[in-house]
Amino acid sequence: MQDREKAFIKTLAQSKSTFGIGDDGVLLGDFVVANDAFFEGVHFKREWGSLESLIQKSFLVNLSDIYAMNAIPKYALLTLCIPKDFKEARELARVFSRVAEKFEVKIVGGDTIVGEKLQIALTIVGEKQKKTLFRKKIQKGDFLAYLSPRSPLNLAPKQAFGKNLRALKCALRFNQISKNSRFECPLVYPKMIFAFNDVAKAGMDISDGIFVELGRLGQINKVDFELLKPKGEWFYSPEEYQMLYALSAKNLKKAQNLAKKFRHHLVIFARAKRGKYQSLKKNWHC
Amino acid sequence: MQDREKAFIKTLAQSKSTFGIGDDGVLLGDFVVANDAFFEGVHFKREWGSLESLIQKSFLVNLSDIYAMNAIPKYALLTLCIPKDFKEARELARVFSRVAEKFEVKIVGGDTIVGEKLQIALTIVGEKQKKTLFRKKIQKGDFLAYLSPRSPLNLAPKQAFGKNLRALKCALRFNQISKNSRFECPLVYPKMIFAFNDVAKAGMDISDGIFVELGRLGQINKVDFELLKPKGEWFYSPEEYQMLYALSAKNLKKAQNLAKKFRHHLVIFARAKRGKYQSLKKNWHC
Repeated sequence: MQDREKAFIKTLAQSKSTFGIGDDGVLLGDFVVANDAFFEGVHFKREWGSLESLIQKSFLVNLSDIYAMNAIPKYALLTLCIPKDFKEARELARVFSRVAEKFEVKIVGGDTIVGEKLQIALTIVGEKQKKTLFRKKIQKGDFLAYLSPRSPLNLAPKQAFGKNLRALKCALRFNQISKNSRFECPLVYPKMIFAFNDVAKAGMDISDGIFVELGRLGQINKVDFELLKPKGEWFYSPEEYQMLYALSAKNLKKAQNLAKKFRHHLVIFARAKRGKYQSLKKNWHC
Repeated sequence: MQDREKAFIKTLAQSKSTFGIGDDGVLLGDFVVANDAFFEGVHFKREWGSLESLIQKSFLVNLSDIYAMNAIPKYALLTLCIPKDFKEARELARVFSRVAEKFEVKIVGGDTIVGEKLQIALTIVGEKQKKTLFRKKIQKGDFLAYLSPRSPLNLAPKQAFGKNLRALKCALRFNQISKNSRFECPLVYPKMIFAFNDVAKAGMDISDGIFVELGRLGQINKVDFELLKPKGEWFYSPEEYQMLYALSAKNLKKAQNLAKKFRHHLVIFARAKRGKYQSLKKNWHC
């Protein structure tokens, strides 16, 4: 994140004009609402993937925010800038339509313009469930964990958790990304997420990398974290769009059994302790 | 609207992936939700106004959609691209905050990036009221009307309804817009709108000009319109963000009295008739 973005967000957050900011989405009545931009030149380059994979990713980065709060995505509002050099507007609409159908959301509004670059800003409206999961509620002694595929037989090694930093660097340097990587198409497992949301005390979507998210969790919950695992790729990997869960000690066993059921490892990597977490600053917008 | 935008929207609308499109916003449970983009180089140039007036307009073009459906704006989600050459991110946040407070909406989410141009995409969530006003329900014999200030004593002539085409042409040609014009800052009167919404059969926000909106109303309601007034500036003026109302004959008197109460003329300009309305194609994005 650049300094200007930070300054803007910090100043806005300190004003009286905001409400409910700090989670992956916001709970409004019976809905959870979230929005994320997916802009050419900022979040992706067009050479990085097919139109279908780019649009799919623009949905997944938003859907994962809704899942993270334990809501079911239902509707999407789309602001779309079609690049001037892009002749196939009909094909673009067909791809959006296919992707929306695939993820079972209806496009209920939007604004379409023609400009320089492919820019997608989505607002997703999800149906609130009995339990809504927030980032807050983490106390001293709680464990932090993420999920990693247990038996990667069906997955390429590049689809394991933590490979995206390498994928991003490769994309920025050589202008191409590995096909079927999590970076090209985030692997989001809503069924598993809903099962874990039920057991977790708090949770969030890992979008900027665990090292960034820890700063957010530390600040919101006023705790520090003791790492239980040496820093590695898993710590810095951005755009995982996987869940970071906080679990109470008494729910650890339950969570481990759940992980087994979904053929994943529950990777417990930190424990909350008294103090103030010192976060690193960088993230990875291109 | 450019051909590519039209092709995209038409193709998307024909797919199974949309729901509720065709009104100024969409009714979802207890909320009415709408989104509109306000992009530099498409909807405005930065030289056209102060930062405050531009941001205010980005809100008003959205708020007017929520008012149009007789809902009360409550929340905003903001996707913002801060231009690289723009150093004052804190000031930008303060302006957004002031404008949001002025219009009594809370900013509940968003995404901020740094890019080439100032780009604002807002999603506004409004609270549904007892009656929601749609564009549909117009029948043969219904009258169409807009409202124009009755006693323009407090208003400059350029603030009368219908002056925006001139203002837009002037802005495009000379890169400046008249201060205090409706084009710089739309005059939106929520109290008056809510009173008329109660009496009207159908209604919509006039954003692209009555000549464009008639095409939309004709298509949705499967009617033609007989103009009761010679075409003039009022017919082509874009970005009025005023209401176009459909009134049944029996409610005309009531509407006229309401107009008097709010010191406006009820300008009845068309009547619905059997047939198919032939719309003109152009609109006025820069």
